[in-house]
Amino acid sequence: MNSTWVQNAPHIGTLPAGPLGTIADVPGVTVGHCTLDQGAVQTGVTVIRPHDGDSFLDKVPAASSVINGFGKSIGLVQVEELGTLETPVALTNTFGVAAVAQAQIRAAIRANPQIGREWSTVNPLVFECNDGYLNDIQALAVTAQHFDDAYAAASADVVSGSVGAGRGMSCFDLKGGIGNASRVVSIASRCYTVGALVLANFGRLPMLTVDGTPLGRVLAARAAKAATAAAAATKPEQGSIIMIVATDAPLDARQLKRLSLRAAAGLARTGSVYGHGSGDIALAFSTAYTVPHGADFITLPPLLADERLDPLFRACADSVEQAILDALWSAASVTGCDGHRRLSLRDSVPDLAQLLKPTP
Amino acid sequence: MNSTWVQNAPHIGTLPAGPLGTIADVPGVTVGHCTLDQGAVQTGVTVIRPHDGDSFLDKVPAASSVINGFGKSIGLVQVEELGTLETPVALTNTFGVAAVAQAQIRAAIRANPQIGREWSTVNPLVFECNDGYLNDIQALAVTAQHFDDAYAAASADVVSGSVGAGRGMSCFDLKGGIGNASRVVSIASRCYTVGALVLANFGRLPMLTVDGTPLGRVLAARAAKAATAAAAATKPEQGSIIMIVATDAPLDARQLKRLSLRAAAGLARTGSVYGHGSGDIALAFSTAYTVPHGADFITLPPLLADERLDPLFRACADSVEQAILDALWSAASVTGCDGHRRLSLRDSVPDLAQLLKPTP
Amino acid sequence: MNSTWVQNAPHIGTLPAGPLGTIADVPGVTVGHCTLDQGAVQTGVTVIRPHDGDSFLDKVPAASSVINGFGKSIGLVQVEELGTLETPVALTNTFGVAAVAQAQIRAAIRANPQIGREWSTVNPLVFECNDGYLNDIQALAVTAQHFDDAYAAASADVVSGSVGAGRGMSCFDLKGGIGNASRVVSIASRCYTVGALVLANFGRLPMLTVDGTPLGRVLAARAAKAATAAAAATKPEQGSIIMIVATDAPLDARQLKRLSLRAAAGLARTGSVYGHGSGDIALAFSTAYTVPHGADFITLPPLLADERLDPLFRACADSVEQAILDALWSAASVTGCDGHRRLSLRDSVPDLAQLLKPTP
Amino acid sequence: MNSTWVQNAPHIGTLPAGPLGTIADVPGVTVGHCTLDQGAVQTGVTVIRPHDGDSFLDKVPAASSVINGFGKSIGLVQVEELGTLETPVALTNTFGVAAVAQAQIRAAIRANPQIGREWSTVNPLVFECNDGYLNDIQALAVTAQHFDDAYAAASADVVSGSVGAGRGMSCFDLKGGIGNASRVVSIASRCYTVGALVLANFGRLPMLTVDGTPLGRVLAARAAKAATAAAAATKPEQGSIIMIVATDAPLDARQLKRLSLRAAAGLARTGSVYGHGSGDIALAFSTAYTVPHGADFITLPPLLADERLDPLFRACADSVEQAILDALWSAASVTGCDGHRRLSLRDSVPDLAQLLKPTP
Repeated sequence: MNSTWVQNAPHIGTLPAGPLGTIADVPGVTVGHCTLDQGAVQTGVTVIRPHDGDSFLDKVPAASSVINGFGKSIGLVQVEELGTLETPVALTNTFGVAAVAQAQIRAAIRANPQIGREWSTVNPLVFECNDGYLNDIQALAVTAQHFDDAYAAASADVVSGSVGAGRGMSCFDLKGGIGNASRVVSIASRCYTVGALVLANFGRLPMLTVDGTPLGRVLAARAAKAATAAAAATKPEQGSIIMIVATDAPLDARQLKRLSLRAAAGLARTGSVYGHGSGDIALAFSTAYTVPHGADFITLPPLLADERLDPLFRACADSVEQAILDALWSAASVTGCDGHRRLSLRDSVPDLAQLLKPTP
Repeated sequence: MNSTWVQNAPHIGTLPAGPLGTIADVPGVTVGHCTLDQGAVQTGVTVIRPHDGDSFLDKVPAASSVINGFGKSIGLVQVEELGTLETPVALTNTFGVAAVAQAQIRAAIRANPQIGREWSTVNPLVFECNDGYLNDIQALAVTAQHFDDAYAAASADVVSGSVGAGRGMSCFDLKGGIGNASRVVSIASRCYTVGALVLANFGRLPMLTVDGTPLGRVLAARAAKAATAAAAATKPEQGSIIMIVATDAPLDARQLKRLSLRAAAGLARTGSVYGHGSGDIALAFSTAYTVPHGADFITLPPLLADERLDPLFRACADSVEQAILDALWSAASVTGCDGHRRLSLRDSVPDLAQLLKPTP
Repeated sequence: MNSTWVQNAPHIGTLPAGPLGTIADVPGVTVGHCTLDQGAVQTGVTVIRPHDGDSFLDKVPAASSVINGFGKSIGLVQVEELGTLETPVALTNTFGVAAVAQAQIRAAIRANPQIGREWSTVNPLVFECNDGYLNDIQALAVTAQHFDDAYAAASADVVSGSVGAGRGMSCFDLKGGIGNASRVVSIASRCYTVGALVLANFGRLPMLTVDGTPLGRVLAARAAKAATAAAAATKPEQGSIIMIVATDAPLDARQLKRLSLRAAAGLARTGSVYGHGSGDIALAFSTAYTVPHGADFITLPPLLADERLDPLFRACADSVEQAILDALWSAASVTGCDGHRRLSLRDSVPDLAQLLKPTP
Repeated sequence: MNSTWVQNAPHIGTLPAGPLGTIADVPGVTVGHCTLDQGAVQTGVTVIRPHDGDSFLDKVPAASSVINGFGKSIGLVQVEELGTLETPVALTNTFGVAAVAQAQIRAAIRANPQIGREWSTVNPLVFECNDGYLNDIQALAVTAQHFDDAYAAASADVVSGSVGAGRGMSCFDLKGGIGNASRVVSIASRCYTVGALVLANFGRLPMLTVDGTPLGRVLAARAAKAATAAAAATKPEQGSIIMIVATDAPLDARQLKRLSLRAAAGLARTGSVYGHGSGDIALAFSTAYTVPHGADFITLPPLLADERLDPLFRACADSVEQAILDALWSAASVTGCDGHRRLSLRDSVPDLAQLLKPTP
């Protein structure tokens, strides 16, 4: 270990993190990965389960913000209309959406054979980023089994980095992938947790900003001297970021939509301006109650008043920014298709400590 | 032929139809079906091609209106952001979306191997309705080959009825499916065509309204006497309708969004109130110009001013209403899974002429 | 009275009306008008109060659908964000919005002097239609006092016709104005009421459809013979319709947005295709609970599940269609600026009974 | 002058500013202020003219992003539908919207007496922030004359600071107000300018971030020691920010909507998380062409392809961030109603140079 490396990403903002520092700090939320690491195939599937029950029978309230809609997700039309999730949230590569959606449908039918017959159909929710730099995306390697494996692996012990859907992702021309963070806030004498899990696959190196420090400019200048990054940096961004925000605060879908938009603030602070080719989508859900399938009436706990949401808004922005940094700090270097290689932040900047001066 | 049958659906409104009376009256638009008629499997795929070129290289301007978002389409997020289509429009059953999306991606890569590598990814556009009453939807019978077959079959000779994606669809408790219509308008001394193709799978019998006549009430009363429709009519609607609107009028994406919403007016006039469980989605595209992939600048023809759009709005509403009637008039009776059977309007109401009195 | 006149508009649909047949069938809702009938000034203000308390302290949940946004309302941005009303709903002419908004602010401050000081500001909600054909709209005759007068006059005894904001409005080239209707539905063994109040100022004569009968075509043909309507009918529509929907069903803002969109179905059935120049806006609110200003938590009653909303959707569409007909049936002929005159339906079509044949 | 004061805000990002460093770097754009500085009345009106012609006859393409809709603007419904401006853009305090909207209508009618008669009505566009801390907002001091005066004063010599609508505004518990900035980008061998004018009235001190440096934390800690800022900082934010973005790049309304959203990135980088009570709205317009009133067809110049927009997106984010800093640097301290006083950044932090260390 180089003594000048910075073990942990700087803590963003002034709110405390939860005990795990992952989306699983929101009680009941679990995450599973299935990672494909087979030569030119560097990709995978990540599943976020809102609770350990049946997602179709007990739907959680949810809403999304499409910050830049250059993306090929499936499921958002119905989330917007009905304000609930009917399946776990799945993440994969752009061309894996169909296979994972099919897997979500099969899993839902296995659990509830009435779906599509006596009952209405199920709305699979799958998000994606394009990992085509490291991964042979045209191989369409992701299958239904990979979703099932990720689902089966879901636990509260959440791993970040070059895993699951994050296996082949790049971020700021460095190795990206899965990142996690959480924040705890107090509102009206009660504590609430906001957790974020991101699939970070966006940004060119010069944009990278770490807790306000324009690190990317320095690194890009250094790389320009080394004449290594020039070609890459002139290519327009084709990345994306998916930001999943969970909370145990009692919010309805309209409020969760407001919350999800604050992911855009955290994202901006890392250097993004929501590039044209970047599918930047945030989804927020609450675990404070569920909407039971087939009920006549929905009983809600007392909802937080909108006037009290500011701490949650801050927690969302800070968690997302922190989770993006976590992805950079956690990801391992990966070599994939066509000899393409992405260095991790650690491998790329062993002297990071000298560049990240402590903020006042 | 019962002499009291009405050969053709009444002509809706006062605008004239185009020569074909289908969406193919818009020059360049073609349609292909692949129909699966195999016992319990009664489903299929329908493909609408905006032009006979490469949809990815020459993107047509497009926009959609989600009238009721109880639906599982893929592709609308990017259409909303960028205002173009990158693939043909595909229609299928709810659980066939993934397979058809995969097929769209493969077809795009075959034509342009740079997709997902040097170029960004492609946005497959697939709409669906739930044909689970007639079709064994859980069999997931639709495959990529069915998309390819429908695509290969595309022509300007467009068939309506129990074909393609319409094979297993129901409408007003009668046999539904694919319907077509067109209208021609004159604006500023020029002629423009609006064509509509619908996948009609919505509505309970008592709601059916034919050119203002509440036919469904009469039929439901008759059925109630015969005690045959009671069970069905108490079940909440689980249908949907997809309304594809094409025009050769020079409009941009914002204007096409306005146009697409007028499909809601035509739909309402047939008796729909956009039921909770009905995914009611309209998509409009223009063939007046294309957005070339990779261009720096987009050269547009002079666009129609918004102040001149009213004839197109009327043409859209009338075409969609007419196309829904066309689906009912064209569909043949079908027997599918679990012994379920949907009678065509003709088989169900042989004395239709006595019920549809001429309007003043 | 000409014996061939039809006393009441046909009853739309099969759901029963409430006892009053107005928006005031929703318990607590009251309406007041202030009518300006002074030569060339033919305009006014209408106020709908959701309850008889303080609208700012006890906000009702609400949402809107902008069906065609050619309109100059104030207040919808915040309704969309927060899902509540903070003032009564006010209707007036296009150039009266500012005066009425100012009046709403003053009234709110009178009741709660903390507004804009210790408390945040208040969001006045004012809708408008353009009555410039009958009313000298450039005179800007509406003042804050007219709002106060309409507010003071609010009662459950609601008048329709050429009153309040409806004084100068035209509809289908006939006299339009204020219309009311209501429907009662049963869901899960409970009764709920939907009431609609419209400010109807849209449509050209040939489009008019009464319960499915294309009455406008007949009247237009007759008028064409008489060569009286030719000039008017060639002018593009510059009207609008505001549709206020109230219900006592327990719904949240997301659900109310869904409900409000069903006004578009009722509107379409009268002949509208949401013309370019017509500001067609629906607002729905619920009286089932209020959101108290300054609370930490909002306690909601059990909400109706989305799966149970279809009867309310139908009630909304039917109420709006009925309310539009009510406006036509209730309005008296008015002569206004520049010698312009709009005949009421009754004065224009004394032989209506012969044209409106009973439906099957 | 304290030698430790920093004369100019740090330059944000790497893109160059235009020659003026204001929104008027976009050719044709002019700005005028009317400032009310009369004891407890500390408010005003600011007008941005897209060109020096008639805004109604030659409408510029425009679109907006409502980042947080806690706001009382008028005019956005129609901008969203039609994608054009019909009047100059006006800014004022929350309770001045009605008076300024009325003034916009009167001005439009003076220029075009057909408005509201032979022609349709005009859509006044007025944005607001709540200056109720410094300004006696309940006095409703803004009148139509103030709009006329601001309009008459419009020039390319744009002043920032405690002027016009910015007179009474606060930002990060410091004096806020009007800020300006611009950036020049090169796309496909052509130069385009993006200019931003903000009305900055948002944020609590601890959030303030200057080019990545968390200055607010330091200042808040210092203030806490001095026990002066404690009360203020615990009060929830009731501010807002209006961000007007102009460009000469040829974009349509859909693209301008994309551009306007990037204001959210610049805003976030100053410390905002789009607080609940902050009406955060961005409007973008292009001066590259106009939409003539009453035309049949609209002739557009070749539009920039969406794939080429990234430099404009960056320019928008950087301009907005820079303009917010400009407001803080330009504003003078103001004493207003109830003895309330807001210190300028300069008066509050005379030793700024020691806190803002140069970035790497």
